[in-house]
Amino acid sequence: MSEETIVDTASARATLSRVAAEAAVSTSTVSKVLNGRTGVSETTRIRIEELLAVHGYNRRGGGQTAALIELVFSRLDNLWAIEIIRGVEAVARENGMSVILTESGDRHSPAPDWIEGVVQRRPAGVILVFSDLSPDHKRQLRTRNIPFVVVDPAGDPAPDVPSIGSANWSGGVLATRHLIDLGHRNIAMITGPDDMMCSRARVSGYRSALDAAGIPIQDHLIVPGQFHREDGIERGQELLSLPNPPTAVFAGSDLTALGVYEAARSVGVEIPRDLSVVGYDDLQIAQWAGPPLTTVKQPLSEMAAQATRLVLRLRNGREVESLRIDLATSLVVRNSTARPA
Amino acid sequence: MSEETIVDTASARATLSRVAAEAAVSTSTVSKVLNGRTGVSETTRIRIEELLAVHGYNRRGGGQTAALIELVFSRLDNLWAIEIIRGVEAVARENGMSVILTESGDRHSPAPDWIEGVVQRRPAGVILVFSDLSPDHKRQLRTRNIPFVVVDPAGDPAPDVPSIGSANWSGGVLATRHLIDLGHRNIAMITGPDDMMCSRARVSGYRSALDAAGIPIQDHLIVPGQFHREDGIERGQELLSLPNPPTAVFAGSDLTALGVYEAARSVGVEIPRDLSVVGYDDLQIAQWAGPPLTTVKQPLSEMAAQATRLVLRLRNGREVESLRIDLATSLVVRNSTARPA
Repeated sequence: MSEETIVDTASARATLSRVAAEAAVSTSTVSKVLNGRTGVSETTRIRIEELLAVHGYNRRGGGQTAALIELVFSRLDNLWAIEIIRGVEAVARENGMSVILTESGDRHSPAPDWIEGVVQRRPAGVILVFSDLSPDHKRQLRTRNIPFVVVDPAGDPAPDVPSIGSANWSGGVLATRHLIDLGHRNIAMITGPDDMMCSRARVSGYRSALDAAGIPIQDHLIVPGQFHREDGIERGQELLSLPNPPTAVFAGSDLTALGVYEAARSVGVEIPRDLSVVGYDDLQIAQWAGPPLTTVKQPLSEMAAQATRLVLRLRNGREVESLRIDLATSLVVRNSTARPA
Repeated sequence: MSEETIVDTASARATLSRVAAEAAVSTSTVSKVLNGRTGVSETTRIRIEELLAVHGYNRRGGGQTAALIELVFSRLDNLWAIEIIRGVEAVARENGMSVILTESGDRHSPAPDWIEGVVQRRPAGVILVFSDLSPDHKRQLRTRNIPFVVVDPAGDPAPDVPSIGSANWSGGVLATRHLIDLGHRNIAMITGPDDMMCSRARVSGYRSALDAAGIPIQDHLIVPGQFHREDGIERGQELLSLPNPPTAVFAGSDLTALGVYEAARSVGVEIPRDLSVVGYDDLQIAQWAGPPLTTVKQPLSEMAAQATRLVLRLRNGREVESLRIDLATSLVVRNSTARPA
């Protein structure tokens, strides 16, 4: 990595001297911390980071960054990963940059040693998928003027971090209104986890669409799931064995919808003749299901592309009007929905 | 990127001087080429690269590399991408390295300007998926002692490049033998493209398994596809409308198998009661199909992990026993196969 001097201006130099004095270390120790090098104790490092933040040290204008965008997943095995990677990669390439991929292995924030790599690699920006950063990590990136943006399909953004989401409530309305327009009145919903705001928003959209059409909400038709396929199988079988079973199911995710397919198959119910099913996400698999699945498209590639553009604007010192942007969702009608028999 | 001097030893220094003299340029121009910097005409650059190769210049031991593995896809949208990324990422992380991801956008080799980025980034190694390198790119990486390995599911390795594949012929045997063991005799196969060796190997495995079991091969049951879902729908419908239709289909890919599902559904044929189906790949979607698909597992993550270990061994100057390694395939039995009715 670049060995250019870390002292950018007279004022920055003064700040570094003051931090060194207050921490009772040499300026070269402060420099080590700034450049993510080893040989500084954890206690000293934290003290220096705090002082740098207190004195508003900011590497703006200096510290050439590498032509890299750092993309951090909590786990790479989710089905959305490839869509997000493609979105980031496309914008990075337009800007002559490469993408560094990291799997943090933790649902909520990257591993502690992740930040050292970032500080050494000095990327132009960091894109986090799902996860948030610890206050210490945020401080370290801000001190070094490395901007970060969260791609947040879960709909629960941290208040002080720029993030890109999608319109979950509208998605719930779109799915439900489509079923109402086809003539369904007995419409079930299999939800996602209660602690995910995106799931709550979808359920809320479902309720609003029924309300707006003057259709009474039947609470026993709103059943809990975790976005998994198994929920679709189990809840689907329960719903289909009701005395007055629903003629349509809005599943909180495509995987749950595929589980409902399996439940229907197991009891000889044919989709869409006997049961209409709408999913959520529009993963690639939705179009390959038998029959191809009607679903709400969550624009993951576009969300990722937008996050990358935003991080590059931040890096260039541009103002950001809004910390949170939700992109529109849309309904993709395929063959799993029809008029009720 | 690191600014350490590019002259590593007295002998290397002598080589650089000789190259500069023969190319009638200064040694600083040679140094620029070696470090991927601009300001050298294309003609001069190529001439210098050739001379460096002729004189056997090799940066061994010098030229500190970054803690990066460069992973190059021709296209990121194929379903395998995420499996391969995960395999590379896991081994990179074990070794304290990060993964740089590039989409080359060309089926056969990365874009011309890709190599400049690599030379500047100086990764510890390069993993190519599917694609091969041009002779010029190979020479540039070899001169800089950056090793490369190809992950090659297509089964058609370049003779002079280390590559990791999988046992396609054995996969074809496994799938077909499974159907024979269940009691099927009328077994169709939907192939992949003729110009992909992996497809030819699978067909050849299918033939060998039938032969070994003393079952006559019926050429009209071997029908051509392109590994796409559409082939499964069309060829599937044709096969099912034969006077004496097959009781089982071995599809050359999971997507083709899902197309056969659709064909069966459209004519009221039930899987596995009326028709057994085996796929190939074991993509994640195979387990979510209705019914879950019996298929041949291609160990993509392991292939990618193995390629990454190999590139790191090469980087450490270790000997490589074999330029080509094929990992084993295995049969994953789920619910799409049964005894014939």
